[in-house]
Amino acid sequence: MDLDVLFAGTAGSAPTVRRGLPATLVRRGGERLLFDCGEGTQRQLIRSVGLVEIDEVFITHFHADHVLGLPGMLKTYGLQGRQRPLSVHGPPGLTRLFEVLQPLIGRTSYEVVVQEVQAGEELPREGYVLAAFAVEHGVPALGWALVEDERPGVFDPARAVALGVPSGPDFGRLQRGETVEGAQGEVRPDQVMGESRRGRKVVLTGDTAACEMTAAVAHEADLLVHEATFLEEEAERARITCHSTAGDAARLAAKAAVRMLALTHLSSRHPAGAIRDEARATFEETIVPRDFDRVLVPFAERGSPEHLFGDGS
Amino acid sequence: MDLDVLFAGTAGSAPTVRRGLPATLVRRGGERLLFDCGEGTQRQLIRSVGLVEIDEVFITHFHADHVLGLPGMLKTYGLQGRQRPLSVHGPPGLTRLFEVLQPLIGRTSYEVVVQEVQAGEELPREGYVLAAFAVEHGVPALGWALVEDERPGVFDPARAVALGVPSGPDFGRLQRGETVEGAQGEVRPDQVMGESRRGRKVVLTGDTAACEMTAAVAHEADLLVHEATFLEEEAERARITCHSTAGDAARLAAKAAVRMLALTHLSSRHPAGAIRDEARATFEETIVPRDFDRVLVPFAERGSPEHLFGDGS
Repeated sequence: MDLDVLFAGTAGSAPTVRRGLPATLVRRGGERLLFDCGEGTQRQLIRSVGLVEIDEVFITHFHADHVLGLPGMLKTYGLQGRQRPLSVHGPPGLTRLFEVLQPLIGRTSYEVVVQEVQAGEELPREGYVLAAFAVEHGVPALGWALVEDERPGVFDPARAVALGVPSGPDFGRLQRGETVEGAQGEVRPDQVMGESRRGRKVVLTGDTAACEMTAAVAHEADLLVHEATFLEEEAERARITCHSTAGDAARLAAKAAVRMLALTHLSSRHPAGAIRDEARATFEETIVPRDFDRVLVPFAERGSPEHLFGDGS
Repeated sequence: MDLDVLFAGTAGSAPTVRRGLPATLVRRGGERLLFDCGEGTQRQLIRSVGLVEIDEVFITHFHADHVLGLPGMLKTYGLQGRQRPLSVHGPPGLTRLFEVLQPLIGRTSYEVVVQEVQAGEELPREGYVLAAFAVEHGVPALGWALVEDERPGVFDPARAVALGVPSGPDFGRLQRGETVEGAQGEVRPDQVMGESRRGRKVVLTGDTAACEMTAAVAHEADLLVHEATFLEEEAERARITCHSTAGDAARLAAKAAVRMLALTHLSSRHPAGAIRDEARATFEETIVPRDFDRVLVPFAERGSPEHLFGDGS
């Protein structure tokens, strides 16, 4: 099943010519999950993958640059006659935010389900969970981890035949976890299946200081999307504002042994090249995506995460 | 004094790849006046003329596509440490809108002055007035007309000399409206000055059905910026939704004898070329600006309004 991440807005606080406000779209099979929705997100989507009917929105925190795109996007869905419900999840305070936004959104042709989530909660989904974890931004703020279920190990047909199970329907039963009757007695799945294989993990921090919780949650993640608002030369400012430097994020990525680190929430104070270089000095597998870039996340045995360039505008 | 109009967002209701939500910047000398502020306006400005410190914002009505860019733009001004007050004007209901937006804007480093304006009110400014007029959009909605003061006529130095006023400081006094002593007695300004010349007039309708009031206010305007959400083939839909067809706007422009008609608030339902062609069949001096296009508005004696193309993205 395909899994990729589209960077729909990679600026922090204020937009720039090239970077929109925070929004990251995760596509898994046919599902579309949006993380944060800064002003202009609907148009960023229109300019890249189209304004697809997103299934769920996950908000990291309520600073304006992360949420002001919600009312416009929800209204446009209404103009399109959307019927499918839309769920929005976020830390405590989300209900209050929607009370504020309601007069701007008005009535919609579809149901908007607003769900507050506590740090530590896991939202079960078909084939994965979405885990909310506490980050450190001086306000209620959640990081989000998409963690796929383990997959069954690889079936060994030769071993099954050796145990007296002929090629046929029983092969399927064994792979589905059922015990079958072989020529020399019962054959259990664990006798013919390799070790179960882990699923993929994508972690998005939102705005935060680099923190232990992120390192723990992101352990061996395929992709960690971490903010890097500052360079080390402004480490003190990063600390005071509960943001991270590129160096902070890189050290955390190294500690967590992630496969790829993508840095976002760039400030116009620091060139992207400087952010990238500072992080790569510590953690080589760092990218600084431009808006509309994507990262493909294959299963570990099929290769490394791959950075694909969008049209860059 | 230079006067131009920058089309910062020419879509209606929902943005498209090429068109942002409604926003029009009028620049007169060093003044910057913004008419409507749809979602994404701050970035549209950053992508064209820069996020200049706008002096005044004029809202036509409170539909979301015309106002959702306000909180983000006001917050970004705050991040920039703006000190200069910002005035926002709009129809009755503006105060309530700002009560709704306030939690999203938060505290700012500068004063935001919110002023409700009644249809028929004129806001006097240095060298011009901003006149609010009632349009027909099914909700409280204002069009705005920038009307420059009349300018003195052209001074005739030969006539002054003939009346016995020697070239020198008295020439300036006559041009400033003072009576002076000539060789054959008093000389009044009206003896040496041509007829006073009218100033320029730029009229912006916001969303509206084509209406008599607009035709009256826009009489002989240098530039009429009128909405054209529909083609004639959807005239009934235009009527029901209190919008205009391109044909409606063109007939109004012809009746009002404006110098140039600029059509905005385009729907993705109709190609810009079809909107333009439908209007030009009735009123030749019609343009359909793309985002970031400008119109220069010279004094009438210096030439016609000129459509300058932006980079079109």
